[in-house]
This record gives sequence, C-alpha cells and structure tokens, in this order.
Amino acid sequence: MDIKILGLIAGFFTSVGFVPQIIKGFKTKKMKDVALWQYILTFIGITLWLIYGAIIKDIPLIASNAFSLVCVTTVLSLRIIYRNN
Amino acid sequence: MDIKILGLIAGFFTSVGFVPQIIKGFKTKKMKDVALWQYILTFIGITLWLIYGAIIKDIPLIASNAFSLVCVTTVLSLRIIYRNN
Repeated sequence: MDIKILGLIAGFFTSVGFVPQIIKGFKTKKMKDVALWQYILTFIGITLWLIYGAIIKDIPLIASNAFSLVCVTTVLSLRIIYRNN
Repeated sequence: MDIKILGLIAGFFTSVGFVPQIIKGFKTKKMKDVALWQYILTFIGITLWLIYGAIIKDIPLIASNAFSLVCVTTVLSLRIIYRNN
C-alpha cells in the first residue's frame, strides 16, 4: 500500500470529524458548551499545517487541512453567531 | 529556519487547541452541545496520523498527534461522563 493512502485516510477522519459539530450546531442552534478558544487555536494550527504541507509537498497534509480549514471556519462562525443561545 | 519548526508550531496549535474544551468541560460539567461523533472520528483520525507520522518519521506529526491523542481521549471521556448534564 502506498503510505500516502494511510495519510489520506487519517486526514479524512480528522477533517470529516468536524462535520458532526457543524450539523449539531445548525440543528440545535446551541454552541455554548463548545469552547471558542479551541476553534481559534485550531484555526491558526490548521493554517500552519497547510503551509507546512505545501512546503514539504505532502498531499495528505494539504488535502485534509484545506478541507479542515473550511470546516473549522464554519464551526467558528456558528459558535460566534449562536454565542447567546 | 528548519521547516520542522513550522510543523512543530502548527502541531502545538492544533494539539493545545483541545485544552480550552477540556478546561471548559471540567468547569461547567456541561458537554451536551459538543458533538460526540466529532471526537470519535477525530480519535480514529489522530491515531492514524500518529501511525503515518511514525512511518514517514516526521517528528512534528508524531509529537503533536501523541499529545492530541491524550487530549481527545480526555474530551471524549468528559463528553461521555457528562452526557446527561
């Protein structure tokens, strides 16, 4: 097995992992138990992973972090929009 | 700058990102807005990233995912313990 496939599967899980929080946030419109700072720190971290992945030309890192960045931005937005619910 | 340093900084942010959720969970004992499936998927993903990092011998991937795994296990435990709060 090409080792890159393992990285892509790993990236699939960590990226898609954000989706349940997005769905739950949209459905319940309640996000107050979710830590705002988690998503601020994760946003910074994922942006840096994306840059790191681009520099070392690692496709799993680039693909999963690009997708994660979209998801984290969505969760962060929901957390801010529903902050008083 | 050694490119590994960028990876370590990236890993620092995505790993430490879980800490605010751990603190918030312990303090409020409320986790019901936190999606259980997010942490189940993330747990699987981070375990695979750790294996991937070990195989490609990437220190930033190994270090950050080892730390993240401890954090995700803690959040997952809090989420299960406080599921009815």
